[in-house]
Formats: sequence, structure tokens, C-alpha cells
Amino acid sequence: MTSSVERTITVLGDGGWGTALAILLHHRGHQVALWSAFPDYAAVLKAKRENVKFLPGVCLPPGLEVTADMAVAAGAELLVAAVPTPYLRSVLQKLARSYAFGTPIVNVAKGIEVGTRLRGSEVVRDVLDSRGPVAVLSGPSHAQEVAHGLPTTVVVSSADPALAKMVQQTFMGDRFRVYTNPDVIGVELGGALKNVIAIAAGICDGLGFGSNSKAALITRGLAEIARLGVAMGAKRETFAGLTGLGDLFTTCVSPLGRNRYVGEQIGKGRKLRDVLATMEQVAEGVLTTKAVCALADQHHVDMPITRQIHQVLFEDKNALEAVAELMVRAPKSEVEELQ
Amino acid sequence: MTSSVERTITVLGDGGWGTALAILLHHRGHQVALWSAFPDYAAVLKAKRENVKFLPGVCLPPGLEVTADMAVAAGAELLVAAVPTPYLRSVLQKLARSYAFGTPIVNVAKGIEVGTRLRGSEVVRDVLDSRGPVAVLSGPSHAQEVAHGLPTTVVVSSADPALAKMVQQTFMGDRFRVYTNPDVIGVELGGALKNVIAIAAGICDGLGFGSNSKAALITRGLAEIARLGVAMGAKRETFAGLTGLGDLFTTCVSPLGRNRYVGEQIGKGRKLRDVLATMEQVAEGVLTTKAVCALADQHHVDMPITRQIHQVLFEDKNALEAVAELMVRAPKSEVEELQ
Repeated sequence: MTSSVERTITVLGDGGWGTALAILLHHRGHQVALWSAFPDYAAVLKAKRENVKFLPGVCLPPGLEVTADMAVAAGAELLVAAVPTPYLRSVLQKLARSYAFGTPIVNVAKGIEVGTRLRGSEVVRDVLDSRGPVAVLSGPSHAQEVAHGLPTTVVVSSADPALAKMVQQTFMGDRFRVYTNPDVIGVELGGALKNVIAIAAGICDGLGFGSNSKAALITRGLAEIARLGVAMGAKRETFAGLTGLGDLFTTCVSPLGRNRYVGEQIGKGRKLRDVLATMEQVAEGVLTTKAVCALADQHHVDMPITRQIHQVLFEDKNALEAVAELMVRAPKSEVEELQ
Repeated sequence: MTSSVERTITVLGDGGWGTALAILLHHRGHQVALWSAFPDYAAVLKAKRENVKFLPGVCLPPGLEVTADMAVAAGAELLVAAVPTPYLRSVLQKLARSYAFGTPIVNVAKGIEVGTRLRGSEVVRDVLDSRGPVAVLSGPSHAQEVAHGLPTTVVVSSADPALAKMVQQTFMGDRFRVYTNPDVIGVELGGALKNVIAIAAGICDGLGFGSNSKAALITRGLAEIARLGVAMGAKRETFAGLTGLGDLFTTCVSPLGRNRYVGEQIGKGRKLRDVLATMEQVAEGVLTTKAVCALADQHHVDMPITRQIHQVLFEDKNALEAVAELMVRAPKSEVEELQ
């Protein structure tokens, strides 16, 4: 299925998600370039026509351009930022030289910048254009599944409804459904914050707990995500949607999830440093945990799960002890718990 | 860990959940009898000290009484009804002869009576005592996991706060946490309605879809559960809690789930009749689907997933077609979708 309007699009970032979206947009009939920050790896992509490191087993279609030259962005009608949040700022600074003022940017990464505590779309505005056309695309969307054409539903959000509609039409397909939701803060926070809960879910897996425990964790995890989100200006309903509950679900159950994997290894007794040293991909939840604790302080929000994960990751707390502390609290009413 | 107050308790029903709760209550220091409707099977339980059919691999502790004689209920200070909803009324009618008026009953089964469309606790009142002390206990709680001491969190609800507190104290342990929630309708509906969505989730599994699809299904499933619940007088927040989101989660992911299993087999192309013929246990979601469709009609609530499942189960609709119809809808806003 091709799109009604053909566009020239540059996808920034050679990770699994950027690659899957570049392929999807190409199949929708757009003129797509996939930009890699690493000339050596761009050469590998071009030679093998496969992203062997981050999206193995999926062919890059012949018409999809691969480049390490940022100049390609100058001609784009739409930019897709698929760069892990820790590297987003430096990539945008590189982009700034080629950036045609006013070109819309969709951020698809899920994280919060440590230090500034900015959401991805805020980092985009901070670097490029303080009132520029920015959208975010988020939701339950493992790259491998999207690349293999498994049905996926996501949400696009922007302060500019026309841009949200344009992004919706650009990405929409039979097996990739795109909804709009005007709550940018909620959509973006859901995607970032769930990575912390995913680490906690992984710890449960590593400890050998079952789905009863994980269900309780996810329920309370979503409640604390929503608590912070509402304090930061998001709408509560958004967290019941695809970018809240939906994304939390898939991140916590899929064996493909990087953050869940980190937690699982820690639950089995490994140290964070050792786990990260063996991973090719970025587990955004690790740094996000720091940012979220800072935001919880700033907004005076109670986030018991995130606090425990912080202690496990950075303060050498025993994982089993952390989970036990979450479980064994004085009997109280669920209504209190969910507020 | 033993409870502060020892009670004489009869658990009605020899299924996995009744057995797991009887063992749990025994370990909490209570005097527990497990009642089976089938004298032959009660004899097997007594001889083997194991519920080989419904909770294999778990020993019945020596002090736990097993009986098929309903007279045992006459001496109980607390009754636990763990009977699948289709059989609840007939068991209660049998109980009526031994029932000491005023004895509190906790219903732990999850379903809606077809025909009357009554919730379990309403059936209890209908048969035994129209203003009697009734509570419900619900939440993400696979029997096998509870029996193996894996951490579990559930909710008790009653119109009588003192009874809810008593039930909380009776069941509460280190690895079995009990919260209270005064919203009886919401707590009870969440447990019943999620079984329908679990069948849909199983169909996704059977069709070979991934976690992106399942996440979307669960998100929209919870939205339609909450829509009906609110129309029936429940509180919306309850569906974000353990008995809504939490129970939905565990039912849709656990390989142990019977309703998910039924859906999975249908997704693989088997017929409902054939699947049910090979199952020892009751998949409550199958009959609940009928009851929920009737309730949706009665309350004029839009429930697209439940409708499609009804067509697949009882109107011979192709499973892939049903899922496709759910996926391919006109692009719209998520806000509409979640209302």
C-alpha cells in the first residue's frame, strides 16, 4: 500500500527502530534516506543491505538510500529523529548546519535527557527551533515486529494538529495504524517512563516470579507513571492508552525488550555494569531512571517503584530486597494506592 | 505466618483456585474444609492428598479437611465460594439447607451468570440472603502461582467495610497481599469481563501476531471493559487497578490461562466445540461473552472486541477476519477510542 502523498524523508539514526521505520516509509511510497552517525557502519549497511547489528534478518529494499552525510537532511520535507535520547542533542547539533528552518521533525525515541530533564521533543526545540513544527510518535512497537509486518498501532502527537494529521497520513498502513492524540506531554512521558517499570518487570522475571507479581507491578507502575505525568501537565486518560498502558505492556512482556532484559539479568544476580558491557543496544531505561527520580523530586510525586529501581541500579541494593519492600507494605486500600 | 484470629472456614469448590485458597488459609492458621461437589473426586483428593486434575504438583497439607458433605458449611464462620459461575446457583441451592443465616460469603469466581446477567455476588444474594454479608475477592492470581508461594496481590470488596477488613485480615500474608476497594461492581466486573479479552489475546497468539498487536488489543479491551463498567455503576479508577488492568494483564500473557488457551486454539484454526471437548477446566470467558453482549445491548455500550469474539465463538466467523476488522478502521483520534 502506498501513501496518497509522496514525501522526501530523512530518518536520523541507524538503530532497529529507525531502520524499521525507514523501510516502512519506503514501502509506503516515500523517498527515504536512512542516516547513520557512523560512516563505517553506513558502509556495512550499504554493502549488506541489512542492519545486521540492530535489525538482523530484514532486507533494506533497493530504493532505500543509506548515508552518513548529514547534507541529505537539507532536502527532506520531513525528518524522523530515531536517536537514543543520550545522543539526541549531539545529532541535532550536527543536523543544525543542514536544517532548513521550518522542516517538521518527528521524534520517535523514548527517553528523558538526564541533566536537563527535557523530553525528546523539547530537546529538538532547544537545539533547532524554539517554535518549530515538532511531533512525537510513540506506542507499543517493537521494531522487529513492525519490520515483519505484524499488526501494530501507534500514536502521533503534536501541538500542531495539521502536523499530527500529516504524520498520521505519512505513516499509516494496513498493518501500521496511527492514531492522533493532542496530549504531547502524556504521549511522550508514557514512552519514556515505562522503560523504568520494564526494568522492574525484568527483575521479577530474573527472580523467578510469575505473572501475578508482574501484573501487580505493572498496575502500580502505571499508576506512578500517571501520577508524575499529571503533575507535569499530561492528561490522565493518555496513560490508559496505547502510549501508556499499551507500551508498558509490550515492553514488560516481550522477550525482545532491552530494558526488561537488563532487569532480568540483574534479578539473576548480575551487576549493571557487566550487563551493559555485553549489550550492543542502548537500554534507555537505565539513564531514564535517574531523570525520573529527579523529576519526582521536583514535582513532589511518590514513585516507590522507580525509587527502588534507582537503588538497585545505582546504589547496589539487592534486587530481592527491593521487590520485597515493594510487596510488604501495611495493608491499605487500593484507592489510596492508585491515586 | 499465621493469622491473628483463627477461623473455621469452608471453601466450596474443588477447582484449582478453591484448592489453592484452602491451602493458603490452612497455612494462615485457620481451620479449613475443602468441599467438593463430587463424592468420587473428594475420595481421590483424600486418598492422594493432591488435586491431580486441577492443581497438580501441590500437596494438600495433613490438617486440611476434604469432604463432599455440605453439612460442613453449617459450622463455618466464613464461606468461600470458588465455584465456576455456571454452577454457582446450583451449589448455593445445595448450600441453602446448611447455611446459617448471616454467615459471610466471599465469592472468588469470575463470571457473569448467563440468562440473569447477574454478577457472582448477586447470585449469592439471590439464592441465600438478599441483604447478607457478601464480599468478592479478585485480582491477578493464577492458582498455580499462589500455590507455589509466588508473590500475589489481590483486592477484596464488600458493601460492608467491616467484612472487607475481616476478609483482608483472614487471607493476608507476606506473599499474598490483600487490598480493599469499596467498588464492588467494578471489582467484580473487571474479573469477569477480562476473560473475554483474554480469548481475543489468545486468538492473536494463535494467529502468530506479536506483542505490539496484543498491547493494542489489551489497551482497547480495557477501555471497553471500563465503558460497560461505568455504565453499570462501577468507578472508572477501579479498572486501572489490580482487578482491571492487573487481572487483564496476567490472563492475557500467562501460558496457564484457560481463556487465552481457548482463543489460541481458535486462532490456530480449531473449532470451539473441539477445543472445549478436550479441556478439563471451565473457560469462563466463553459463556461470559454471551452475557457481556447482552449487557452491552442493555446499557447501549460500544464493545467492538467483545462483539467480534462473539461472532468468532458462536457465529462461525473467521478469526483472522475478526482481528482484521478490529485493526482496519478509519484513522481517528485516540481520545475518541478511549472514551
